[in-house]
Amino acid sequence: MSELEQKNAIADDQAETGRTLIHDLNAEPETPPAPANDRLVGNLLVAQSGGPTAVINASVAGVIQEAGRHPEQIEEIYGGLNGIFGILHENLIDLNEEKARTIEELKHTPAAALGTCRYKIQFKKNPEQAARDMDRLFEVFKSHNIRYFFYAGGNDSQDTNNKLHHEAIKRGYPLRCIGVPKTIDNDLPHTDHTPGYGSAAKYNATTVMEIAADVASMATDDGSCCIIEVMGRAAGWLAASTVLAKRKPTDGPHIILMPEIPLNEEAFLAKIKETIDQLGYCIVVAGEGVKDTDGNELGADKTRLDSFGHPVLSGAAEALSEVVHGKLDLKTRTVKLGYAQRAAAHFASQQDVDEAVASGRAAVRAAVEGKSGFMVTIDRRADDPYEYTTGLHPLGEIALVERTVPRDWISEDGWLPNEQFIRYAAPLVRGRLDLPTKGGLPKFAELIRVPVEKVLEPR
Amino acid sequence: MSELEQKNAIADDQAETGRTLIHDLNAEPETPPAPANDRLVGNLLVAQSGGPTAVINASVAGVIQEAGRHPEQIEEIYGGLNGIFGILHENLIDLNEEKARTIEELKHTPAAALGTCRYKIQFKKNPEQAARDMDRLFEVFKSHNIRYFFYAGGNDSQDTNNKLHHEAIKRGYPLRCIGVPKTIDNDLPHTDHTPGYGSAAKYNATTVMEIAADVASMATDDGSCCIIEVMGRAAGWLAASTVLAKRKPTDGPHIILMPEIPLNEEAFLAKIKETIDQLGYCIVVAGEGVKDTDGNELGADKTRLDSFGHPVLSGAAEALSEVVHGKLDLKTRTVKLGYAQRAAAHFASQQDVDEAVASGRAAVRAAVEGKSGFMVTIDRRADDPYEYTTGLHPLGEIALVERTVPRDWISEDGWLPNEQFIRYAAPLVRGRLDLPTKGGLPKFAELIRVPVEKVLEPR
Repeated sequence: MSELEQKNAIADDQAETGRTLIHDLNAEPETPPAPANDRLVGNLLVAQSGGPTAVINASVAGVIQEAGRHPEQIEEIYGGLNGIFGILHENLIDLNEEKARTIEELKHTPAAALGTCRYKIQFKKNPEQAARDMDRLFEVFKSHNIRYFFYAGGNDSQDTNNKLHHEAIKRGYPLRCIGVPKTIDNDLPHTDHTPGYGSAAKYNATTVMEIAADVASMATDDGSCCIIEVMGRAAGWLAASTVLAKRKPTDGPHIILMPEIPLNEEAFLAKIKETIDQLGYCIVVAGEGVKDTDGNELGADKTRLDSFGHPVLSGAAEALSEVVHGKLDLKTRTVKLGYAQRAAAHFASQQDVDEAVASGRAAVRAAVEGKSGFMVTIDRRADDPYEYTTGLHPLGEIALVERTVPRDWISEDGWLPNEQFIRYAAPLVRGRLDLPTKGGLPKFAELIRVPVEKVLEPR
Repeated sequence: MSELEQKNAIADDQAETGRTLIHDLNAEPETPPAPANDRLVGNLLVAQSGGPTAVINASVAGVIQEAGRHPEQIEEIYGGLNGIFGILHENLIDLNEEKARTIEELKHTPAAALGTCRYKIQFKKNPEQAARDMDRLFEVFKSHNIRYFFYAGGNDSQDTNNKLHHEAIKRGYPLRCIGVPKTIDNDLPHTDHTPGYGSAAKYNATTVMEIAADVASMATDDGSCCIIEVMGRAAGWLAASTVLAKRKPTDGPHIILMPEIPLNEEAFLAKIKETIDQLGYCIVVAGEGVKDTDGNELGADKTRLDSFGHPVLSGAAEALSEVVHGKLDLKTRTVKLGYAQRAAAHFASQQDVDEAVASGRAAVRAAVEGKSGFMVTIDRRADDPYEYTTGLHPLGEIALVERTVPRDWISEDGWLPNEQFIRYAAPLVRGRLDLPTKGGLPKFAELIRVPVEKVLEPR
């Protein structure tokens, strides 16, 4: 096994057996891989991977618009449909065939306009298939003279991107691979936060504020507990963000359950009872990955696995509702925002959109300057007034590492994020996207998707 | 038993044993009760009841603002906290103590700013308590010289309002009772639609559009079925409204399950399979009250009843998901919008807000003109361009009657509403509320709630 194959196998191991969790936001990076030669002429390929966000298309728009400013190095601008899955099938489209207006409209269009995938190159599980996949990807790259590759995605996608970067070096194929951060979960390390998080946080906090007002107004003879489930498997960033809905101490949410804090059922029920006694109602936000004190996910249905082999989490709120209703005999209602929260472009954060665009632009600038094997990061300069710049961090230290909410950003009793968290999250939800509508409903971009002619045998 | 008591008992029976369902939108009203004397001077009491909506406060703002234009008849403007439940406890506030700006802000504030209740006066179940309640309510009315009573609510609330109207006649107490229509469910008869519906429809259709884009972009290697559960127990108006998300025939939603159409499981699975085979994914919207061919609600948990004695519906989407996953072995995700959909002021329909305000205003005008025992209706004049006026309909014909989606507004195969429905629903979601924000999140009205001095012994 070569050194690279060994590295890939180790990475696969991490992916399959659990991830490294980091709580230290300021961990020092390893030395980055050496930059490739600094002048490279060829075509650009941008693709999207993993769960979409409200702003992943804004990043693609940033890539395309910045690429247009470097005609001396970047010739054609291609999009890979459905991430590496589509690239393996040579499904490329010519983004220069799209109207400039459509590219601009991507900045308010949710979901993945190029399509996305969860396909993985699995060196450990299936080394032969992985080797064939790599050969095929480089065949596609060579056939279309792809020299710039931008992959917008989260932990798993940056792992794929990192593998491509190392393969290119190994194969002596000049290729610049830069990752564009993306995930509503906000669990990527070495970046202050990730594009997608701000918009999901804004929508979730707004929704919790609205639901809390509703439940509060019903409380007199209808006292009840409402449990709102939000996404976030290993990290409680999204759950935590709903604390922004709280303008007065008595405002909901009253309890925020994060995967970082094991749930003590007895204390949880006591806290609900205390809140109901005081206010007549109680608003609970539960991150989908909340765990009991034995480390079991409350909402896990172990009979169903997703494509990465993790159990499907379908019911933290329902599971909690059964406990609350059963033990406290309290009217309990649940809300499960699910995909709605990652697709809610209709109330996206303009700050988030701007940063998503900036991340795409920064990725292209870095590649044109000769960098490869990095992900763009968002580096915070100041909280208030908020300022940021973009930076770069080696992909190898981002892939498969999940960043969780630091313990000291959560109140001592564990029920709510504290002022430190609020200072962090508040600037990310600012500014409202000016959403074009048609007949009162959103008007999203539609790519015409002119295919790039295939030159290879079908896979 | 007097005639009135008999009437009340019959109404209670209907409430407890099921409701009348009507499909005919143009049924002729019975003769309205005789109007009261046409000049009455005294105080106004406005209250809210039942589940809140995004615009129920806009109706209250309409009542308050119109009342201010009739000082020759309306002296004080009071709000009853938590509907009749609070009025029984003499919990009134002086709305003239609120800032004019706050009243204006009610037009974009969700939930019930005065608080709401589900308390019922139950002549059949508990005649002695009901008689005591009526005595108490009229004591409160007399003590505070309440001569104008406006109740914003749905079927059950209009039943209460109707009882008050008849009691006032029986007791020879001059009182003008006018109902202000309110329900996201849109199931009140004799009105084209109800304030609250347009905003919930706009939010639900937008959410389904966004989720559909998300799921579509993931379909290639992650083909899946997403089931979105929306409110609507007996009537499928809210589920149906999500058809507005469909701009092309292939757009989601692909299947909309309404309580009006019994679900044939086999046909449902076949339809999903057909959609997946064609598109790689399938978007299903399920009204919470969807029933199987034996008439059983799919998501009913019969061990838990709400305060009206109906089983709590917590899981139509989860129940369907188990069927789809089990029988088709298909990745299936659920979204349960729950209270989020009725509180979503952040994306409310301006048309709906305007009509809610207009309904409140019309209620006051009718009362000042001498009417009592009516609910304000919204009467459509034209579809495109849309035009409406307000009208009046006797409360007795509205209370406890639920209007469902006409069969001929649904496609023959039962899977989607048709063009007739779209023509009906499209104008109701137009116009976006210009929502004030603070730090990126909504800024809602907060009443200062100056109490009216109590003069009675505590209940």
